[in-house]
Amino acid sequence: DDIRAYARNVVEKEIEKHAADGLGRVDYALATGGASIVKHSEPYLVGKGSSWFSKSTKNGVHGDADRMLRPSFGEPGHCFPLKGTSGFVQIKLRTKIIPEAITLEHVAKSVAYDRSSAPKDCRISGWLRGGDDPEVYTEMFRLAEFTYDLEKSNAQTFNTMDSALSGLIDTVRLDFTSNHGSPSHTCIYRLRVHGHEPDVLSMMAMQQ
Amino acid sequence: DDIRAYARNVVEKEIEKHAADGLGRVDYALATGGASIVKHSEPYLVGKGSSWFSKSTKNGVHGDADRMLRPSFGEPGHCFPLKGTSGFVQIKLRTKIIPEAITLEHVAKSVAYDRSSAPKDCRISGWLRGGDDPEVYTEMFRLAEFTYDLEKSNAQTFNTMDSALSGLIDTVRLDFTSNHGSPSHTCIYRLRVHGHEPDVLSMMAMQQ
Amino acid sequence: DDIRAYARNVVEKEIEKHAADGLGRVDYALATGGASIVKHSEPYLVGKGSSWFSKSTKNGVHGDADRMLRPSFGEPGHCFPLKGTSGFVQIKLRTKIIPEAITLEHVAKSVAYDRSSAPKDCRISGWLRGGDDPEVYTEMFRLAEFTYDLEKSNAQTFNTMDSALSGLIDTVRLDFTSNHGSPSHTCIYRLRVHGHEPDVLSMMAMQQ
Ligand SMILES: [K+]
Ligand SMILES: [K+]
Ligand SMILES: [K+]
Repeated sequence: DDIRAYARNVVEKEIEKHAADGLGRVDYALATGGASIVKHSEPYLVGKGSSWFSKSTKNGVHGDADRMLRPSFGEPGHCFPLKGTSGFVQIKLRTKIIPEAITLEHVAKSVAYDRSSAPKDCRISGWLRGGDDPEVYTEMFRLAEFTYDLEKSNAQTFNTMDSALSGLIDTVRLDFTSNHGSPSHTCIYRLRVHGHEPDVLSMMAMQQ
Repeated sequence: DDIRAYARNVVEKEIEKHAADGLGRVDYALATGGASIVKHSEPYLVGKGSSWFSKSTKNGVHGDADRMLRPSFGEPGHCFPLKGTSGFVQIKLRTKIIPEAITLEHVAKSVAYDRSSAPKDCRISGWLRGGDDPEVYTEMFRLAEFTYDLEKSNAQTFNTMDSALSGLIDTVRLDFTSNHGSPSHTCIYRLRVHGHEPDVLSMMAMQQ
Repeated sequence: DDIRAYARNVVEKEIEKHAADGLGRVDYALATGGASIVKHSEPYLVGKGSSWFSKSTKNGVHGDADRMLRPSFGEPGHCFPLKGTSGFVQIKLRTKIIPEAITLEHVAKSVAYDRSSAPKDCRISGWLRGGDDPEVYTEMFRLAEFTYDLEKSNAQTFNTMDSALSGLIDTVRLDFTSNHGSPSHTCIYRLRVHGHEPDVLSMMAMQQ
C-alpha cells in the first residue's frame, strides 16, 4: 500500500510538471508572457514553400521566429531554421530578472526525421538595455556555455555561471558556433530563460 | 510483479486522462465543440500591445475571449483578462444539458509569474434561453458558489448544487466578485461545464 | 527502493513518449514535417457556422483538411468531417518511405460528445507518384485493412502487410467504407504514417 501510494504520487507529480508547459518552471522568454525575438541571424527559407516568403518580416524579425518562444506538442517542424552552422537569436525578456538557468530544446529523438540541424556548441549572454536601443548596455554577462547533447533529454537545462548571479538582465542572446552535422541550416525549437524578479530593495541596491 | 503491473497501470490511466484534454471529462463549453462566449464584462487591454486593439470585437465579444473555452499547454498568458476585481463571462453551451459540475482553471503555480489576477469568489448560474434572446429565460439555476484556492490544483472542479440537478440549461454565466490581489484585472484561463444530454423521454417530461 | 526506481522509470518513459507528439514514433504524414492533404471526398459542412464556408478551398482541398495531419490536445472538434458513411483522404508524405505502420486516431471516449462519426472499416493503400500527377503510379500497395475499434485506445496503430514491406511510397490513401453509426458524416481526427527512409543502396536497387 505504501508503495502504491508512492507510485501514484510520482505519477501525479510528473504529470503535473508535464502539464505545466513541460518543465513546471517559470520562463521569462515565453511569447505569451510578453517576451519577443528582437533579432536573429539569416533565416533558412529554402524548400519551405510559399507561405514562408509571404510571412511578413518586421525590423528584420521573421514572422515565424516567435516559434522559438512557444510550446508545442513535441512534433518536428515547430521550430525556426537559421542559415548555416553558426548564428544567433536575441530575445527581449518579459521583464528584468536575475537569471538562474537556460533551457534549450530540440525535437525528441523518437519523432525526429533527422537531428543533424540541432545546435551544438552554444554561448548565452545577457544584458540590461540602456534606453530604447537594445544594443546599448553598460555590462554584458556571460550566462552559460554548453554543448547540446543529442543523447540526453530533448529539453536541456543549464545553470547560469556564478559570475552572473548578481546580474540584472532584460535581454538574452544565444550564439551557436556549430551544429550536429547539417551543412545548410540549424533549427531552434525553443529557448527558455529561468530566474527571478528582484525585490524592490535589491533593485535599489543594484541601481546604485 | 504485481506491484509493477500496478505502477504501469496507474501511469497509463493518468496519461490517458491527461492526453484527453487534461481531465478526461466531457466539456460542453469547449469552443471546438460548438460553444461560444456571448458576453463578458469590460476586458483589460492596457499593456498588451497593438495586436489587442486591432482584434475585432463582435457584438461586444473580444476576438480573444474564446481562449477561455480552449485548451493550452498550461503556459501563462493563454487567458482572457477582465478589468477590475469583479466581472462576468457568459457562455452559450454546445447544446442543452443537465449540468453536473464546473471546472475553473488558472495557470499553474510552477510556471506563473504572478497569480494575483486569479479569480477568487465565484458564482455560476445557468438557464435555458427563451427564443433567440440569450437574456430571456423562464427559470435561472444557481449552479455553484465557490472560492478558487491558489493552494490546490490549478484546474478546480465543483459539483453543481442539488437544486440544479433537474435543470436543463444551454447558457452558463460565471460571476466573480473578488480576485487574489490584483487591483487592475482578473484573468480567466478556462471554464468547463460538465454534465449530460438528457434522453428523449426526459426531454419530453421537462418540456411539459 | 528497487520498486520505487522502477515506478519512476516507467513514469518518465511514458511521459517522454507522451511529450513526443503522443506516441514517440516518427510520422511521415505530419503537416509541419512537410506532408499535405492532396485530395478528399466531399466535406460535411452543415451546421459548422460561417467560418467554414469562408475557408478557402485550394484544388478541391478544404482549408481545414490539414487538421488530420496535426496534433491536438485530444479535445473533440479538432478533426475533419467528411460527408456520409464512406469516403477517402489522400496524403502526400513528407518524403519517400518504406511504410511500416499506420495510426488512425479518433477522439477519446472520456471527452467525446458522441463517437458515432468515427470511421469503422478502413483500407489503406500507398504508391509512388509517377511524375507530377499524384494519380499516376506504376504499382499500388495495399498497406492495411482494419476496423477502428471504439473499445480500444483512441490512437490505434496497424502494421502494414508483409507484401508492402519492400514498397517505396510517397502517397497514402485511406478509404473508409463504414462508420460507427452516424448517417450524416464521418470524422477523421488524425492519420499518421510510420516507416523509414531507404538508404541510398536500397534506393538504387529499387529503381532498377
Ligand atoms: K516551439
Ligand atoms: K486557455
Ligand atoms: K487533429
